[in-house]
Amino acid sequence: MELSKKNLARNLDRVYDVIIVGGGAGGLSAGIYLQRFRLSSLILDKGKARSFWMQELHNYLGLPPDTPGRVLLKRGKEHYLSLNGDFLNAYVEEVVDEGDTFAVRVKVGRNNSIYPVFRSKYLIAASGIIDYLPPLEDMQNVYQYAGYNLHVCMVCDGYEMTDKQCGFFAGSEASIEEMVFNLSWFTPYITVFTHGLFEVSAGLRSQLQEHGYRLIETPIKKFLGQKHQMTGVELTDGSVVELETGLISMGSRYHNTYLQRIDLELKGGNLVTDKMGRTSHPRIFAIGDLKVGLNQVVVAAGDGALAATQIWRDIRREKGPRRWEENLKVSV
Amino acid sequence: MELSKKNLARNLDRVYDVIIVGGGAGGLSAGIYLQRFRLSSLILDKGKARSFWMQELHNYLGLPPDTPGRVLLKRGKEHYLSLNGDFLNAYVEEVVDEGDTFAVRVKVGRNNSIYPVFRSKYLIAASGIIDYLPPLEDMQNVYQYAGYNLHVCMVCDGYEMTDKQCGFFAGSEASIEEMVFNLSWFTPYITVFTHGLFEVSAGLRSQLQEHGYRLIETPIKKFLGQKHQMTGVELTDGSVVELETGLISMGSRYHNTYLQRIDLELKGGNLVTDKMGRTSHPRIFAIGDLKVGLNQVVVAAGDGALAATQIWRDIRREKGPRRWEENLKVSV
Repeated sequence: MELSKKNLARNLDRVYDVIIVGGGAGGLSAGIYLQRFRLSSLILDKGKARSFWMQELHNYLGLPPDTPGRVLLKRGKEHYLSLNGDFLNAYVEEVVDEGDTFAVRVKVGRNNSIYPVFRSKYLIAASGIIDYLPPLEDMQNVYQYAGYNLHVCMVCDGYEMTDKQCGFFAGSEASIEEMVFNLSWFTPYITVFTHGLFEVSAGLRSQLQEHGYRLIETPIKKFLGQKHQMTGVELTDGSVVELETGLISMGSRYHNTYLQRIDLELKGGNLVTDKMGRTSHPRIFAIGDLKVGLNQVVVAAGDGALAATQIWRDIRREKGPRRWEENLKVSV
Repeated sequence: MELSKKNLARNLDRVYDVIIVGGGAGGLSAGIYLQRFRLSSLILDKGKARSFWMQELHNYLGLPPDTPGRVLLKRGKEHYLSLNGDFLNAYVEEVVDEGDTFAVRVKVGRNNSIYPVFRSKYLIAASGIIDYLPPLEDMQNVYQYAGYNLHVCMVCDGYEMTDKQCGFFAGSEASIEEMVFNLSWFTPYITVFTHGLFEVSAGLRSQLQEHGYRLIETPIKKFLGQKHQMTGVELTDGSVVELETGLISMGSRYHNTYLQRIDLELKGGNLVTDKMGRTSHPRIFAIGDLKVGLNQVVVAAGDGALAATQIWRDIRREKGPRRWEENLKVSV
């Protein structure tokens, strides 16, 4: 059921089979599977998963290609609640490994916050990442276009950029090196913006020049456009660069600080897992964008199924089979 | 576009980037990703994927929990065709590795069949498996209930069997050993049917007895029920066993004979792959039920995204970046 400040107290004495941190695609898919495995689960969701910002999912099998990410999330939450899963809007502050259980301390409510502690046998880290956006004075100006034709994921939206005048908004020299030449698969009409955040080495500078890509180091004043369609940028020197689309590549914030007191194997910022999503801790699983792998909604949904199934196998083996006699039913 | 006997000839001279064998959840998801990566693909589908038989998908994130499998497949095919993917209803007879390309010989049409050969650089084996059903004289009697309350997948449908009188239709001693005790997680009211196909060892016989499970070795004459709801079985000796649900566990046929001349690493009947779905052949990928892993629709859909992305990376690296000058566009 949907929990809130008012009705959560009764759930503080119990031990859930699984607490899922994050109610995005991965967490919801895991929750649906867990409830169908007749396990108890609680999803702790701070709101606004990465897919919430996607105005159109173009590549999720089974949904029409203009389905907003928030529709997927809404349907998934309804599905999960229909299976009697518990869902609470809360921010996870810390997870403590108590041996057989985890103690998960959360913050509930922006005002008059309370800090209850929930417990579970297993933990699924499905809290994902969020993309850094160009730090402009007026962030509302960025939010107007981000997720529309100002993209953050090349695999998701490269197709929409095909042969368009594209602004590439870089966060570092490395992001240019790693991404710009791949972006040219979709469009070679690339203008790289550093927003004055970092220096570009002579080597990379000449590489960009060789490929004919423009490099603009003057900071951006604001994005131009209307009705969520970005048409260019105005720079701080007053000049205007016209664009038809954009890709932001400024890195990501990992929603994993609640795990910092637990020693888990990482690769870059991502949690290392086996094929079923198990991290280096036998009772902690990681799915979706937090784990090593491809950051895609449909992959996260698959990850959720895998992690939930492995946890079910673990718990099932521990409990052993049920006998007919022990559960006598009126004979048919 | 949708190909047929009449219009396929023009596609015999080209080399597709990827041919996908199988138009189920995995193949369609891969096709959608490939087309969005601006690669060319052809899906060869014999029809009636395993998910086609599922009357209700209960665990696919984003779809209401009573969505028939065929609705997912229909939407996926429309999505793929809208991205200009090629789709042909055909049975793949053989794949020959020609070095840089694969030659894929197919049979088109049940009557007046033709046997064209298509070519591609990469191959995705997404042709899945199909479950063996109890071999009754009248197979229509089995089809009336299979996929309704006579299930073939415990992970998918165990929840629907909760605490019900369940028939377990076994294909071998091993299938009993592997599955019955897990099935008891959902319901302990289990009656095992051997259909007279094999002998049960004394050890397993006493194990079943200890757990209170019934064992029936008399062959089945027919399933009883109405409106696709199985209510029991009639045995060949005329006796009737009442049931509320059933699980068929008689093994699966692997749709992989077209690969038999290519030496690929297998585990059991499944193709061994890396995390992106690559088999032991660098240009052959396997996704969904054909590969080692969990047989679930949402996992297959995720697999498709992974394999397509890896193939794109391979081809992109080989071709190298595009330069602005080479593709001069009218300057904005």
